[in-house]
This record gives sequence, C-alpha cells and structure tokens, in this order.
Amino acid sequence: MKQQLSIVKIGGNVIENNTKLTKFLLHFSKIEGYKILVHGGGKLATKLASKLGIESQMINGRRVTDAKNLEIITMVYGGLTNKNIVASLQANGTNALGLSGADGNTIQAHKRAIKEIDFGFVGDIDGINADFLNMLIFSGITPVLCALSHDGKGNILNTNADTIASEIAIGMSNLYETTLYYCFEKKGVLLDLADENSVVTDINTTKYQELLEQNIIADGMLPKLENCFHALTNKVSKVCLGDIEMIQPNPKLFTSITL
Amino acid sequence: MKQQLSIVKIGGNVIENNTKLTKFLLHFSKIEGYKILVHGGGKLATKLASKLGIESQMINGRRVTDAKNLEIITMVYGGLTNKNIVASLQANGTNALGLSGADGNTIQAHKRAIKEIDFGFVGDIDGINADFLNMLIFSGITPVLCALSHDGKGNILNTNADTIASEIAIGMSNLYETTLYYCFEKKGVLLDLADENSVVTDINTTKYQELLEQNIIADGMLPKLENCFHALTNKVSKVCLGDIEMIQPNPKLFTSITL
Repeated sequence: MKQQLSIVKIGGNVIENNTKLTKFLLHFSKIEGYKILVHGGGKLATKLASKLGIESQMINGRRVTDAKNLEIITMVYGGLTNKNIVASLQANGTNALGLSGADGNTIQAHKRAIKEIDFGFVGDIDGINADFLNMLIFSGITPVLCALSHDGKGNILNTNADTIASEIAIGMSNLYETTLYYCFEKKGVLLDLADENSVVTDINTTKYQELLEQNIIADGMLPKLENCFHALTNKVSKVCLGDIEMIQPNPKLFTSITL
Repeated sequence: MKQQLSIVKIGGNVIENNTKLTKFLLHFSKIEGYKILVHGGGKLATKLASKLGIESQMINGRRVTDAKNLEIITMVYGGLTNKNIVASLQANGTNALGLSGADGNTIQAHKRAIKEIDFGFVGDIDGINADFLNMLIFSGITPVLCALSHDGKGNILNTNADTIASEIAIGMSNLYETTLYYCFEKKGVLLDLADENSVVTDINTTKYQELLEQNIIADGMLPKLENCFHALTNKVSKVCLGDIEMIQPNPKLFTSITL
C-alpha cells in the first residue's frame, strides 16, 4: 500500500496575517506523515513594487510580470516569505527546506507563449522532479515551495501557486496516496455566500455538475474547482477546500472533493 | 581515500558584475567532482535599502542588521541573488539547490551577544548540518549557500559569507578531502599592492609568519588569512585565494595556502 502524502497550499490571506500564519504553521507542523507546503505570494510583492515606484500592470485581472516585477517576486516569494516560513517551521521542529522551481530542478516550465496578451515572465509547468522531492521527503525533510518555476535557460518564471500545488500532487501520486489541501479564506464551497457555515461538505463529479447548473460554483471558484478535478482525474486521491482549521486533526467544517 | 570536495566562495565583486558572474558560473559548472558554492550579498541590499529609505547603520565599518535590514537581506541574499545563481547553474547543466542556513537546518547559529555594540540580527555559527549536505552532494546536487543562518527559534540571521564558507569546509572535512577557494578582486596575496601580478603563490605557516612580520599581510587581508588558517588547522586540506580564473583547469596565478 502507498504511503500518505499531504500537499497543503496557502495563499495571501494566510501569508499576510502574522497571527494566522503562526497558527497555520503550528497546525501544519503537527500533520502526521509526509507533507509538502506550497505558498503563494500575496500582496507583499505589490506593496514592495509600489514603494519602489514599479508599476504592476494588470490585464483582465491578471498580473503582467515584466523584468522588474520578476525581480520583486523573486525577492519576496523566494526570499522573504519562503525563508521566514522555513525558519518558523524549523522552530516548530519541522525540518523544512525552501524551494523555488529552479532549486533541484523541482519545477520545469516554459515562458507562456504570447497570443493576444504578453503576460511576461510567467511559466506554464512542463514537469515536476518527483524523484528529488521523494528523496527529500524520505529523508525526513518537508519541502516548502514558492510560486516560482524555471525554464532551464536561466530564467525564473512566475507561476500560479494553485497550479504548482496540483501539479506537485499529481507528480507525486505514482509514489504516494496524495491529499491536496487548498487553504483559503472560506470554510469550503458555500451554498450561500452570505452564510459562512453553509459549507458543501462532500462534492463528487455528480454533485459538481449539479452545483455548476445551480450556479453555486461560479466566478473565482470555477478555476479553483477545475484545478481540483484536474488533480483528481490525474491520480490525486482527495482534494480538500477550507480555512486553516481544516488541517487540524478532526476538522469540523470543510469541503472534501473526490471523483 | 576520501573523495575531493571544492567549496568556492564569491563576494560582491563577482555578484554585482553580470559579465563576471556569468563567466564565473561557467567556470564553476566545469569544476569536476563534488562542489559547493557560497555567495555573499554585495551592495545590492544596500542599494535596495537606500531606495526604500531604510538606513544602513555602520559601526566600526561593520553593518548593523536591524529588523528592516534583515528583511532586505533575506529578500536579496536568499531570494534575488540566490535564485538567479541557481537558475543560471541549471542552465549550465549543474543541478544546483539554493539554501539559506534555515533550509534543511544547514547552518545553526545564535544571535551575537551584545557587548559594547549591538550588531542586531547577526549570527555566529554553532554548527553545520554535514549529513544533509552530504546527502545532497551524493545525489548529484550542488548546494548554493547564501550568507544567512538561523537560530532555531524562527529567526534568520545575517552571517559573514567567508565564515560560512570556512565552517562548511571544516564541517565537511570528516567526509571529504576539502579545498576552499576564496574568489576575490585580486589574483592572490600580493607582495606589492601596486603590482597586481606580484602574487605570493605558496604560503605555509612559516611563510605566513614572515609575511606578517614584513607587514605584507595587513588590513583587510588579516581576517581573510586568519579565516584560511582557522580552516587549515581544522582539517581543511588546502585554501586558495585568487580571482575567478583560479577555478579554471590549470590556473596561472593564485595563492595556495597549506599548513
């Protein structure tokens, strides 16, 4: 039987709130068994860019990563955020190791082809170095990945952290029974956005279709759920959506997604 | 017989010059056998701090690392510089892995005790995780260390890169026959500062005493040479001082130091 591996992704709402981040990292350290953390960048990079007078161009709600913004996110994602998370996890007794996609060739990607829009130094993932991650995990090390990949030609590329988390989970599913946890600001998929406790606790393919037809899954939740089902159809065992309490033992309210 | 391990340290004069850095990284990639790279920070951090209106306080020519400056160096050393070096090495076919001292608990340190001067978040090294570095090296991975250690209590600490390089070399000398290379702006220890080719090619303990008495080793070279002899008296086989040409096969002019 395969061993269990938890892949947990956190975003800006955890990273930007020190109290929440500390609490999350304590919960995370207590997860039993093998685990990987993936973190996004949050607004720290935008704030730093703004302080330096570097404009952050957005097209259709998506950030354009020019050379100067790439420097900023390499500093913030790969440096400040990643190293502070790693140091905190070490203090919690978790032997963490921070990684960009370039480190150990962990995430191979290519610069997104220019169609109508040039998103700049943005990477679409080609592959994951599962052997390397497996060696680390097997040695008792907990990888902590930031939202940076590389193109093998010397360029760091900005890459969506949700996608990194799902591709890592998929890449590790040949070796492990993987559960992918997306920690976000809500307790799960909500039936009623006005009621934070109206969580749909279980979603499978049939239920997903129903929720889509009822327009309950819409807007920002659409790509998130698409990501979840992409992972599930590629050998990931289970995907969970919820807030940081979800990764505690016996969590109360969260959304569990299976095929 | 022990296998050979090269530990190469580069400082600001290489990091801040793109042409030189590219050339160095090509040379470094061609070094045969096991190797580790240690890089300092250079003036990029000072420049960034200055742009953000953060003052860099110096006491007796040494930087004071307050909380804001610590953020800056964590971004620059651990993020921008480290990740770009790693991505470039990957492009050269070297499977590099960037590390701060917190990553994999590689460099354990404590915050320097306050005597007359409070240097802030500066770390004095307590130990090196040689087993972890050995596992990486043995797996074909080249560690790339930046000048950051950690205290195991969640704090990143600013640590002198020359010291990191010598402590890593010392820590690995039980397992490997280690050579420590300090790449700097000169071709080696010079008999006459006005003549860049007046390199003392071989220094041993006797010669070192002579050079000290003749005042040829003075000022900034004193702590550098002390570092070298500290490494040599702690099982490091050889220390070499020179410019980036030193790590090429059959280098012409550099200083080789043994006991």
